[in-house]
Amino acid sequence: MDNSNKTKITAEEGKQELFIVREFDASREKVFKAFSTPELLMEFFAPFGNKMRFNYHNYQTGGSYSWYNEDQKGNVLCTFNGIIHEIEAPIRLIQTSEFMELPERGHVVLEKMLFEELPNGRTKLIIHDVCFSVADRNAMIDSGMEKGLIEIFNNLDHLIRNSKL
Amino acid sequence: MDNSNKTKITAEEGKQELFIVREFDASREKVFKAFSTPELLMEFFAPFGNKMRFNYHNYQTGGSYSWYNEDQKGNVLCTFNGIIHEIEAPIRLIQTSEFMELPERGHVVLEKMLFEELPNGRTKLIIHDVCFSVADRNAMIDSGMEKGLIEIFNNLDHLIRNSKL
Repeated sequence: MDNSNKTKITAEEGKQELFIVREFDASREKVFKAFSTPELLMEFFAPFGNKMRFNYHNYQTGGSYSWYNEDQKGNVLCTFNGIIHEIEAPIRLIQTSEFMELPERGHVVLEKMLFEELPNGRTKLIIHDVCFSVADRNAMIDSGMEKGLIEIFNNLDHLIRNSKL
Repeated sequence: MDNSNKTKITAEEGKQELFIVREFDASREKVFKAFSTPELLMEFFAPFGNKMRFNYHNYQTGGSYSWYNEDQKGNVLCTFNGIIHEIEAPIRLIQTSEFMELPERGHVVLEKMLFEELPNGRTKLIIHDVCFSVADRNAMIDSGMEKGLIEIFNNLDHLIRNSKL
């Protein structure tokens, strides 16, 4: 893997937002499709040998989704529900996301995913998450988000290398 | 009007969020209904003698809306599109909102509305807005939001006093 394909997470002290940046060796159209097509997401969007499953999905502006990760014994590890504010292929996806295993509702995240074209048919993904509080933002980071995302993005690299997109 | 019914807006310097707090002389059920029922919203949710109109609305979890204000000559003044992340009557409404007359898409706001019961059948509404940037938050404030909201909330007081809820 090229070093430029490293996952970079920026979370400034005291802010209620974070940025995740990752480059991929595939066109913007392909990377966008990977992140907005349930059948493709299920191929890579789970770390540590777990599986991603959907309760429901409707990836269009005004649509919604509910997905979860399950381990190899079929235990549900985490569920995320959200709605799609806007989907503008292959440029932008804006959605909400809520971690449904929390004891309290309302800790919702607003997420913007931008897909930027790079030279040589490569793509930069920029994820911008904003939370209702700094505490919510910090809890996301402390949940082990980075480790999981690195695995998920590496899974996507694997699909790209094997021309599965 | 009781002085406790004043509109209070808090926007801390350098933050990408703001809080709007307003009390009403009506039960939580009635105030919640006012803010989540298109036919009622159209009765009060426009300042300065303008009218609120809907392009579409579906006030349920996973639903969406598009509304605009028009002046007395029928000119469209501002349009807001969004989706309903969660509606939990009579406690909580979480939605996105985007000002559609901006030259650029993506300046979305995540909004939580909490309806708290007060003694004597009164209600405190707490609106918590978070933006993708401090600049977006400041632009909301500079748009004259406070003046408009004060009028809108006074319109709702008027409906309450006249038992129109």
